[in-house]
Amino acid sequence: MRTDGGADGPFRRIGIVGLGLIGGSIARAARRAWPRVEIVAVDRRPVIQAALRQELVQEYRHAVDALVDVELIVLAAPVPAIINLIDRCAAARLRAVITDVGSTKRQIVQAAARRHLSFVGGHPIAGAAYGGLEHARADLFDQRPWLIVADAAADRAAVDRVEMFARGLGASAARTDADTHDRVMAYVSHLPQLIASALMHTAASHVGIDGLAMSGRGFADMTRLASSPGDVWEGILATNEDFVREALAAFLRALPSIGSDADGRPGADELFRHANDWLARMRQ
Amino acid sequence: MRTDGGADGPFRRIGIVGLGLIGGSIARAARRAWPRVEIVAVDRRPVIQAALRQELVQEYRHAVDALVDVELIVLAAPVPAIINLIDRCAAARLRAVITDVGSTKRQIVQAAARRHLSFVGGHPIAGAAYGGLEHARADLFDQRPWLIVADAAADRAAVDRVEMFARGLGASAARTDADTHDRVMAYVSHLPQLIASALMHTAASHVGIDGLAMSGRGFADMTRLASSPGDVWEGILATNEDFVREALAAFLRALPSIGSDADGRPGADELFRHANDWLARMRQ
Repeated sequence: MRTDGGADGPFRRIGIVGLGLIGGSIARAARRAWPRVEIVAVDRRPVIQAALRQELVQEYRHAVDALVDVELIVLAAPVPAIINLIDRCAAARLRAVITDVGSTKRQIVQAAARRHLSFVGGHPIAGAAYGGLEHARADLFDQRPWLIVADAAADRAAVDRVEMFARGLGASAARTDADTHDRVMAYVSHLPQLIASALMHTAASHVGIDGLAMSGRGFADMTRLASSPGDVWEGILATNEDFVREALAAFLRALPSIGSDADGRPGADELFRHANDWLARMRQ
Repeated sequence: MRTDGGADGPFRRIGIVGLGLIGGSIARAARRAWPRVEIVAVDRRPVIQAALRQELVQEYRHAVDALVDVELIVLAAPVPAIINLIDRCAAARLRAVITDVGSTKRQIVQAAARRHLSFVGGHPIAGAAYGGLEHARADLFDQRPWLIVADAAADRAAVDRVEMFARGLGASAARTDADTHDRVMAYVSHLPQLIASALMHTAASHVGIDGLAMSGRGFADMTRLASSPGDVWEGILATNEDFVREALAAFLRALPSIGSDADGRPGADELFRHANDWLARMRQ
């Protein structure tokens, strides 16, 4: 049994701005949960045409401003675009509940608060190796965290409905505040992303394709995130600079001293013991 | 069809020193490939008893010195122990072909060369989250790289037979030299290991278990190696200090500058582009 607000769900008619991997998966998961839901999409023409052909969406609009007749608007775009879309929603005086899927939350929540929108921040912790509607899946959010971010001034009824919506899509919804969200993500998402990209670049440029052929599954795991698109990540890093810099500095301090260059940093044995312990606790 | 030297394989009677995850998996894979192979094991009593009960090995000896009647000796132990075992093989004047599974190769190959043994270095690039005979699997090496490391003075017939043995166990054998091996491993194995452990420790100690609950599959991938045992890794890092330090320094230079602290390092956009390109080439 899902706590999804009944057969019609918490919203009967929703607008989705951006039918990429995340927006497209939200559409598929919403249709899976509530077969009668009406979806109105905003995206470029070829994407809209594909979505209409698949009967994934019923209608489309040329811009977010025209989403005047939906109960929920989901902004499924990169962070800087979301901030821009929030301004346009405010200028168009849209009355719908608005949520987003941005990877950082402070600047987005602040932008919405300034404009007095009925906004509830969201962040589904899910992804895939390839973006685009063609890789969207109804089960992308199943059992994945979906963080609901709203400040004290937020409309509680709207927060409850967005949480119900995320649960209906299969996710494990959890509430947090924008500061906690951005700080935690710096450590568990943004720092790992930078490390994965830097490791891929470092290893490949020093050992070449022949050397990479000698690598195993550990290296493949550690570099899977290196497929992430730089243009999306530019906006994420730019809106979380302070916490990312803090996380990066902490990581550099945690790297062990190798051989004779010890300078107060922990030895490898101590680091491995700590890491073993934390991993075991995380998996409990 | 396997090129495994026929139904009896390249060695009819083999000694395995250390029946942990790797040594135990070699025993299982050898039995899968050559049902009539005779395996003589050296390990602590409870491990030997388990292996005899499972009919995985036929005989056991109390020490490597007693492996006088086998055609191949596999040293499946941590790197410092392998170096020690090589000395004991030499002192006992053993005539078998000797190979090992150590994660670094320069010190091991040098130790064997000094003692005029018929030694062929080996390194199966395979592992699992948990060690021990109870997690050993016949398919652990299937399609995984198995690096064969021998210097110019090595007995070519012995090198060929060890390579045939590795192929028979299911692995993709490839030859290299000890210097290349250790340098490549510093980048694709030892650096990733240090990073995974340091990331696990940094993230967990700054955001706690509650914060880790907000993490996704990317973080799980990036910290899977944090389960690696520190005692084994101490020996790996100690025998590859120069290359590991070189790899770590290169990695630190590749980490992007965040915001205003640019000091000649690449921006995130450039790093992402390089990482995307290398990953795509690696997967081709």
